Amino acid sequence: MATQGQFITCKAAVAWEANKPLVIEDVQVAPPQAGEVRVKILFTALCHTDAYTWSGKDPEGLFPCILGHEAAGIVESVGEGVTEVQPGDHVIPCYQAECRECKLCKSGKTNLCGKVRAATGVGIMMNDRKTRFSIKGKPIYHFMGTSTFSQYTVVHDVSVAKIDPTAPLEKVCLLGCGVPTGLGAVWNTAKVEAGSIVAIFGLGTIGLAVAEGAKAAGASRIIGIDIDRKKFDRAKDFGVTEFVNPKEHDKPIQQLLMDLTDGGVDYSFECIGNVSVMRAALECCHKGWGTSVIVGVAASGQEISTRPFQLVTGRVWKGTAFGGFKSRSQVPLLVDKYLKKEIKIDEYITHERTLADMNEAFDLLHEGSCLRCVLDMQVQG
Amino acid sequence: MATQGQFITCKAAVAWEANKPLVIEDVQVAPPQAGEVRVKILFTALCHTDAYTWSGKDPEGLFPCILGHEAAGIVESVGEGVTEVQPGDHVIPCYQAECRECKLCKSGKTNLCGKVRAATGVGIMMNDRKTRFSIKGKPIYHFMGTSTFSQYTVVHDVSVAKIDPTAPLEKVCLLGCGVPTGLGAVWNTAKVEAGSIVAIFGLGTIGLAVAEGAKAAGASRIIGIDIDRKKFDRAKDFGVTEFVNPKEHDKPIQQLLMDLTDGGVDYSFECIGNVSVMRAALECCHKGWGTSVIVGVAASGQEISTRPFQLVTGRVWKGTAFGGFKSRSQVPLLVDKYLKKEIKIDEYITHERTLADMNEAFDLLHEGSCLRCVLDMQVQG
Ligand SMILES: NC(=O)c1ccc[n+]([C@@H]2O[C@H](COP(=O)([O-])OP(=O)(O)OC[C@H]3O[C@@H](n4cnc5c(N)ncnc54)[C@H](O)[C@@H]3O)[C@@H](O)[C@H]2O)c1
Ligand SMILES: NC(=O)c1ccc[n+]([C@@H]2O[C@H](COP(=O)([O-])OP(=O)(O)OC[C@H]3O[C@@H](n4cnc5c(N)ncnc54)[C@H](O)[C@@H]3O)[C@@H](O)[C@H]2O)c1
Ligand SMILES: [Zn+2]
Ligand SMILES: [Zn+2]
Ligand SMILES: [Zn+2]
Ligand SMILES: [Zn+2]
Repeated sequence: MATQGQFITCKAAVAWEANKPLVIEDVQVAPPQAGEVRVKILFTALCHTDAYTWSGKDPEGLFPCILGHEAAGIVESVGEGVTEVQPGDHVIPCYQAECRECKLCKSGKTNLCGKVRAATGVGIMMNDRKTRFSIKGKPIYHFMGTSTFSQYTVVHDVSVAKIDPTAPLEKVCLLGCGVPTGLGAVWNTAKVEAGSIVAIFGLGTIGLAVAEGAKAAGASRIIGIDIDRKKFDRAKDFGVTEFVNPKEHDKPIQQLLMDLTDGGVDYSFECIGNVSVMRAALECCHKGWGTSVIVGVAASGQEISTRPFQLVTGRVWKGTAFGGFKSRSQVPLLVDKYLKKEIKIDEYITHERTLADMNEAFDLLHEGSCLRCVLDMQVQG
Repeated sequence: MATQGQFITCKAAVAWEANKPLVIEDVQVAPPQAGEVRVKILFTALCHTDAYTWSGKDPEGLFPCILGHEAAGIVESVGEGVTEVQPGDHVIPCYQAECRECKLCKSGKTNLCGKVRAATGVGIMMNDRKTRFSIKGKPIYHFMGTSTFSQYTVVHDVSVAKIDPTAPLEKVCLLGCGVPTGLGAVWNTAKVEAGSIVAIFGLGTIGLAVAEGAKAAGASRIIGIDIDRKKFDRAKDFGVTEFVNPKEHDKPIQQLLMDLTDGGVDYSFECIGNVSVMRAALECCHKGWGTSVIVGVAASGQEISTRPFQLVTGRVWKGTAFGGFKSRSQVPLLVDKYLKKEIKIDEYITHERTLADMNEAFDLLHEGSCLRCVLDMQVQG
């Protein structure tokens, strides 16, 4: 390609400061170094983690930066030593890396990978500990090792999943974060069995993907809990069988659920990021075996608590990151599942916009009717 | 037997009031009613749960009562409908019942049983919701459905395990609580695999039984943590390979253990009952898979807490009651294991006394050198 080895100047939504509107800028994207891949981003969605860092509440947030981590694109060029992808490959950037070499990857027990975290955690690339983005010479930080709010981005080769080129990128971009997180929370982390009673706290994208996963696993009852009644109609299509609005009851929600389920649910999922709901989600579990999975991300510094008796009497407290999926190995399989119509994606996309609408897309995220807003990154305005 | 169907008058250590010395009294023990078994207790040990209730800190403690739940004896008589044991059978009373009929028992997922809890939790028998103990007509409450600090006790038939009659009762009485709790925490609750790195907080009977279980499971490193250096020598015999005294270090213990183990332990066990240690035990676990099991019982009202990020990054928080062993089914198997020298018991017995020494035995419990004190219940003075 003509651009290979060259700087590319392209449009990106830059977060100059916390809580200030993003600005569409001309950004210089350096060529990929050893072990790196430069990707042309075609479609990106927004997720709450982008909004959280943007808000300034994330103490590890660095500015200026280019946010975004739920996207799909095409490899433009690769750096030295990159063998698993090549220019033209269709890919999904993965904020959760998979190097297949580190202690964590080799354990066979987790999808977390330690290889590039020390760099991605501080907004830079591992090779030279610098960023590949700049504006008139001023470096712009990376975000989550993905920075998909740019028409071109540079990622580590361990952070990119090669997918079936026939898959529609405007849909499968969602497999970069939210949908796999919910499905995997059920399939990999909780391992819900057929016949189980499941409670889902929060019916946004993550909660609905949990419902979809639970339905596929054969759950007998899927109880959706949300303080926004508007969420309930849509949730039926994702498998939720019963609804509870905690605001409409005086009893604590954990007590209410115990009463509804003869002693508690088999599995619960917190898909909000609220530490008191996390407690309720644990405490509504059945004595002896009920397992609660934390999926929501709480604000920094907040803590969960409960009486230890809850655990001594057999409840299990877990959490999940990216639903326990190994990103490079399993995201392509999820793409295949979508192509075979075994999992939904289209139904999570409530809005479509372009890169120029980035700030509107952030606003939409906080609107009850929006699940995912997908931005076409190559159309400007 | 001559006593069958009759009241038996015998000696028992009665707790008249919280925190007041127990008094050896002549107690009338009523005959067993339907579904009940009267057991002649030959040997009993003391456990911290007895001391906790005795201290008055247990809000569910009822007085006057007869404490005790780690014991062995011989069936004296049985009530109507009791088929699984008969007079003369050697038995271990089980504070954790196993009815094999309730939702919990039938789940196959837990050793907790719901059948008699509503009665044992309030110090009475299920059949007539009364006690079988009295002194001059005044009822004395049961405790944990066992009340083994009496020469005769009445228990529900679902709360008694029939064991090999050749087993020495002065030893196997320990299989009523402490030793199975520690072994089972490793084998049933954590399911420690060969090669694992294990951390044990607290090296009393429970912690040592965890060490023994971990050694049997093939753990590669067993790190014992205690604030009492005297515990370390003895712990070696139970399989502990390394020792840490938190008092000798400035770093938080979780950080220290992470440093010692290249990122954290695979399994940790809290065997103290201290909520801040419970937190440390979780946080010293390896990211991605480390599992922490709460075995210690914290004082009522105390809470555990941590940042949810600890769970989202793959740590698992669990607890165990009676080590997950199904009491009636599995205590007899543990007795067999002891007879085959596959598990230790003798080594946990540091003191031997008689019923008359009950108060001294309580004092011993708080002395560093004592693990278990076994009382001969039939020798008076
Ligand atoms: N663990 C991971 O790997 C991972 C990945 C992606 C997202 N997340 C997190 O998952 C969470 C959910 O994401 P989302 O995109 O579905 O968010 P969302 O905002 O679309 O959905 C949250 C839902 O919770 C409801 N809610 C809010 N407070 C509530 C309460 N007190 N009780 C009941 N319902 C309540 C809201 O009405 C909303 O429907 C976020 O915290 C996000 O950061 C985690
Ligand atoms: N879950 C169950 O089914 C079950 C059953 C039996 C006992 N228990 C509980 O297990 C716990 C342990 O019982 P035990 O008989 O072994 O008790 P123990 O008192 O003999 O042992 C506790 C040990 O912890 C040490 N310790 C105290 N504070 C410490 C600290 N801050 N850091 C490190 N070490 C510390 C003490 O020095 C002692 O060696 C108790 O809470 C008991 O009630 C639970
Ligand atoms: Zn996300
Ligand atoms: Zn790795
Ligand atoms: Zn005990
Ligand atoms: Zn039962």
